[in-house]
Amino acid sequence: MPLIGIILGSDSDLPKIRNCFETLDEFGVDYEIVVSSAHRSPERTLEWATGAEKRGVRVIIAAAGGAAHLPGVVAAHTSLPVIGIPIETAISGGLDSILSIIQMPAGVPVAAMPAGKAGGANAALFALSVLALADDSLKEKIARFREKNAAKIAERSEKLAALGYRKYIETMK
Amino acid sequence: MPLIGIILGSDSDLPKIRNCFETLDEFGVDYEIVVSSAHRSPERTLEWATGAEKRGVRVIIAAAGGAAHLPGVVAAHTSLPVIGIPIETAISGGLDSILSIIQMPAGVPVAAMPAGKAGGANAALFALSVLALADDSLKEKIARFREKNAAKIAERSEKLAALGYRKYIETMK
Amino acid sequence: MPLIGIILGSDSDLPKIRNCFETLDEFGVDYEIVVSSAHRSPERTLEWATGAEKRGVRVIIAAAGGAAHLPGVVAAHTSLPVIGIPIETAISGGLDSILSIIQMPAGVPVAAMPAGKAGGANAALFALSVLALADDSLKEKIARFREKNAAKIAERSEKLAALGYRKYIETMK
Amino acid sequence: MPLIGIILGSDSDLPKIRNCFETLDEFGVDYEIVVSSAHRSPERTLEWATGAEKRGVRVIIAAAGGAAHLPGVVAAHTSLPVIGIPIETAISGGLDSILSIIQMPAGVPVAAMPAGKAGGANAALFALSVLALADDSLKEKIARFREKNAAKIAERSEKLAALGYRKYIETMK
Amino acid sequence: MPLIGIILGSDSDLPKIRNCFETLDEFGVDYEIVVSSAHRSPERTLEWATGAEKRGVRVIIAAAGGAAHLPGVVAAHTSLPVIGIPIETAISGGLDSILSIIQMPAGVPVAAMPAGKAGGANAALFALSVLALADDSLKEKIARFREKNAAKIAERSEKLAALGYRKYIETMK
Amino acid sequence: MPLIGIILGSDSDLPKIRNCFETLDEFGVDYEIVVSSAHRSPERTLEWATGAEKRGVRVIIAAAGGAAHLPGVVAAHTSLPVIGIPIETAISGGLDSILSIIQMPAGVPVAAMPAGKAGGANAALFALSVLALADDSLKEKIARFREKNAAKIAERSEKLAALGYRKYIETMK
Amino acid sequence: MPLIGIILGSDSDLPKIRNCFETLDEFGVDYEIVVSSAHRSPERTLEWATGAEKRGVRVIIAAAGGAAHLPGVVAAHTSLPVIGIPIETAISGGLDSILSIIQMPAGVPVAAMPAGKAGGANAALFALSVLALADDSLKEKIARFREKNAAKIAERSEKLAALGYRKYIETMK
Amino acid sequence: MPLIGIILGSDSDLPKIRNCFETLDEFGVDYEIVVSSAHRSPERTLEWATGAEKRGVRVIIAAAGGAAHLPGVVAAHTSLPVIGIPIETAISGGLDSILSIIQMPAGVPVAAMPAGKAGGANAALFALSVLALADDSLKEKIARFREKNAAKIAERSEKLAALGYRKYIETMK
Repeated sequence: MPLIGIILGSDSDLPKIRNCFETLDEFGVDYEIVVSSAHRSPERTLEWATGAEKRGVRVIIAAAGGAAHLPGVVAAHTSLPVIGIPIETAISGGLDSILSIIQMPAGVPVAAMPAGKAGGANAALFALSVLALADDSLKEKIARFREKNAAKIAERSEKLAALGYRKYIETMK
Repeated sequence: MPLIGIILGSDSDLPKIRNCFETLDEFGVDYEIVVSSAHRSPERTLEWATGAEKRGVRVIIAAAGGAAHLPGVVAAHTSLPVIGIPIETAISGGLDSILSIIQMPAGVPVAAMPAGKAGGANAALFALSVLALADDSLKEKIARFREKNAAKIAERSEKLAALGYRKYIETMK
Repeated sequence: MPLIGIILGSDSDLPKIRNCFETLDEFGVDYEIVVSSAHRSPERTLEWATGAEKRGVRVIIAAAGGAAHLPGVVAAHTSLPVIGIPIETAISGGLDSILSIIQMPAGVPVAAMPAGKAGGANAALFALSVLALADDSLKEKIARFREKNAAKIAERSEKLAALGYRKYIETMK
Repeated sequence: MPLIGIILGSDSDLPKIRNCFETLDEFGVDYEIVVSSAHRSPERTLEWATGAEKRGVRVIIAAAGGAAHLPGVVAAHTSLPVIGIPIETAISGGLDSILSIIQMPAGVPVAAMPAGKAGGANAALFALSVLALADDSLKEKIARFREKNAAKIAERSEKLAALGYRKYIETMK
Repeated sequence: MPLIGIILGSDSDLPKIRNCFETLDEFGVDYEIVVSSAHRSPERTLEWATGAEKRGVRVIIAAAGGAAHLPGVVAAHTSLPVIGIPIETAISGGLDSILSIIQMPAGVPVAAMPAGKAGGANAALFALSVLALADDSLKEKIARFREKNAAKIAERSEKLAALGYRKYIETMK
Repeated sequence: MPLIGIILGSDSDLPKIRNCFETLDEFGVDYEIVVSSAHRSPERTLEWATGAEKRGVRVIIAAAGGAAHLPGVVAAHTSLPVIGIPIETAISGGLDSILSIIQMPAGVPVAAMPAGKAGGANAALFALSVLALADDSLKEKIARFREKNAAKIAERSEKLAALGYRKYIETMK
Repeated sequence: MPLIGIILGSDSDLPKIRNCFETLDEFGVDYEIVVSSAHRSPERTLEWATGAEKRGVRVIIAAAGGAAHLPGVVAAHTSLPVIGIPIETAISGGLDSILSIIQMPAGVPVAAMPAGKAGGANAALFALSVLALADDSLKEKIARFREKNAAKIAERSEKLAALGYRKYIETMK
Repeated sequence: MPLIGIILGSDSDLPKIRNCFETLDEFGVDYEIVVSSAHRSPERTLEWATGAEKRGVRVIIAAAGGAAHLPGVVAAHTSLPVIGIPIETAISGGLDSILSIIQMPAGVPVAAMPAGKAGGANAALFALSVLALADDSLKEKIARFREKNAAKIAERSEKLAALGYRKYIETMK
């Protein structure tokens, strides 16, 4: 039974939020993915959003670009927490997507994540932090994930100190 | 029977697009106004949008600010021409509203009007230009409206030439 | 006899709004295309705009980038509905084109479409929705087009459910 | 015992997110408010963030303007879900606050809310939707809150239909 | 015989570029002012632009806000140097006007001035610098104007040194 | 003796405004080009600006990107008309350059041209339009240049009508 | 002997950076203030910048708005550290000033401070942090200043806890 | 003993500010580089910032992109001068990084440098200008560095005069 429901406005967004799925896989949390547009397949979108809670979904992640109405439209049809990922576009790298997702009116909240690669990862991590409120083993996994991240950065810093910036940059190529 | 259906996301937008109603009144074209939010009263919004064509509506005008999903959400549920008016906000005077309305995905068009006062007037005039395709007396009225506008500007220009800029500016106060 | 008149400020914009022509071809609606600049060939542009209605044109589509005055200049010389397509530029992906087209003064409306690929498709679809008000078979075609779009998205979603995101992304390459 | 911890970078932000407190009061959910700056009182901020979970806090709300590092800094020191409210500024009405809060790097998520009045209300509502996952009576309250909102909009719409726009606008003054 | 022709899209812009007229008055150079819109009175605008050179006009100044097509439209119909003044708007203080005036396509130049108060003054001064190429007494006046400006600033600086900032600021009220 | 003085802040800008030089070559007007930075070689820049008029220069063109102070700094040291070309940058395609050049304070005007390729061409054409005020043969050349441009566009339009958009786009590759 | 030299492009900026002077007064560090424009009194500006080091100045603060060339122009004529304060404008609250000051070319650095009120205070504090490198009593004063700031925030937080947000907001009026 | 401490939020930023290290190497000034994130390794970042002064560091350089909290977070934990380098991003080429770094609240200053390549070089040069206040031989080196830069530009200008723009551009390829 999926705890997280993920909806994308277009299948072309799949590779752009790939790290969302990978992060959830890494934590071993069950999720469902559906492609459905707020505008081009509105009935299916509403059906999915309305039925999510009954299917056992506890947190929803919705990704969209441009006018990016999908997270807001989904949030209008469910009381579950809805997280929005703004897909990058040509308009200042996704300023249209960011503003369309973040500037929701009072009454129907959407949690906006960063545009670009960080969006997918952080949507997954934020959803996990919500689920972890009722799941101590997940909380533990998040703590270890954070420690691992900090350790990785420290390692890189030590490697840089050992190699100097010139050699380090060469190893990056 | 209303030929034009107007929907506002909030009653606070009413005075901001007042010239939309006044322009339609001036042309004597029948219209309906409804307040309904894409997010806070989604079922009512969809019902209104879905039923518009059967009620005789031929053109829809939707005004919204911020995330401004209303015109797009309405357009997803009708094939009638939908005109969107971006309400001015604090974000660069409505850049969020403009981008949320104009950047619709391929497949579901919305005709975006200017933010600010011009938006209401031009939404009405654009709707009238569509109706005029099947109504020669309306076409005639639009032509006279345009001539009157041009004449008004010419009068002001002549008054300015007569008074000089100093006196003219004083008469503006 | 063309029902839709399309004007481009530069032939370099042709491939950028190709899906405008393709969409109209798909619906079998007659149109004319002309290249003429608001600034570099102003007389020819005005002649074309002024004569459009007499040639049987019912809706005009004008595409331009940068200062993007073309849709507004055309709208100043005809009472037909004018749809503007902002061509993408280096300034935030076309923010200059968007603002120059959308921020028309009260009195002379232009219906602004999205910048980028969606602009061409939606300009065509919006023009068709206007023509469909007087053409039931066209209205029927639009309904089928929308159903087909929704079905395509549903198919992709099912394929994704069947393949999983990893394999699906591979098939996209 | 507070379930929600609220931190503000400056007491001058208090009136700007007042509807956050009022919404939580309306739902009868316990919360704590602290004023502490990410930059001007960093030790106190870290202490508060680090100790939140042990005090029973389950969701954190952080409001800040300009460079607006507070939500991110808090999120760096806790694994609880952190919600960020961008305070409006002179830079495009808060574009600096929005970008500083939303553009968090992969690994440490912050849930960004709208700038302006809607931000406070939606931060409260989003926090409540998270708490409601483990609290059916709260879930019920949210459902009733949404129904009440929808009903209020419908009432206004009916009043508008009864009065006409001219009289309705007069009653707004 | 006017050497400078000034055109405004709306009489509401008159007070906003008042310092343009005042600067020209100060230099004693003859000019004409006309109010005519690129969109709402296009024929009159073209007539004015086309006839300017024959009337003895040597430099044109055009002020407009929003879509702000006026300077470009005038430049399309004359080979005289055309200076554009972007009127301030709610969109980032006139970013729409700025981009619509500055981003002209190759082939038809417009000289863009600052938005806001400086725009009127600098349009006048730039026009004068062009006229001064053929008028040594005007060149002399410009030199004296610049010296006077520099002297005024020096005086203020000395006054500030004498009074201190506290008293100086009080004298500003 | 050069009539037009061109200054670039960096030699890396040379290819970006190449069409400025080519346009001047096409019109056979003499010009000088110098590379000198407002910040990195300020003395040389001031010397050049101060001496321009005595060398016979009548119009100055200054190109710069980013902070783009060069046109303003040059204008501070000469009363000749100064034209500024904003070089494209990563900041929204040159929004930094545009604002730094256009937003000059009242008293010292700079004529701002478009960012990107059009900037070089239009700087040249605007300078020529100023020189043409005192040179009838140049005025004649500008008129012919404009006619040729209009004719080229008409030709392309006819070719498009003959070939159809599919074949025309193929010929563009 | 002034250790800090402050230059403003216009006396109208004096009240806008008043907290710069007040902060320096609070720390008892000697400074000089001069009003001189990069464009309107360039010779005086260069003289001041060139002579600053000899007068004993160790850090320069330059405030300017709009094109805001002053900090960069000063930095071109001295090797002392130059701090720039962007004055707020109508363009997105000073985005023009910010970009003109921050986007200096490689080779001539300017340290950009925030637009708005914080700019004046932080310019003073940054200059003091530089001077403190060679002045232990100043370093001590900065430490106490920071502690005082942190204590003030803690006090407000305690007052808020004691009063509740409703009463606290009332005390703010 | 390092006089300059450099901290990067991510090792991926190393090549982007490479010219910072190279400039310091050219001047022979000792520095340390550490990779540590404000969010992902906050404890290590604070430890580094807090201990910098005791390690002999006199100026800190912090580079970060997106939310870019690193320079501000470091500045909150040290009274040393902190210089921030905004890393370029997809959001208008780094507007998010610029605003997050520059818009610091009153009380904790950060000196913001340009986004892009110039940022690294100027951060180094600004740090050197601070160190040079107590080091005459460094001051001398900076003077020579500036002269060399000015001479290089003059050489290029002469080469351009000798070759003409066509040949010069060819030599650039």
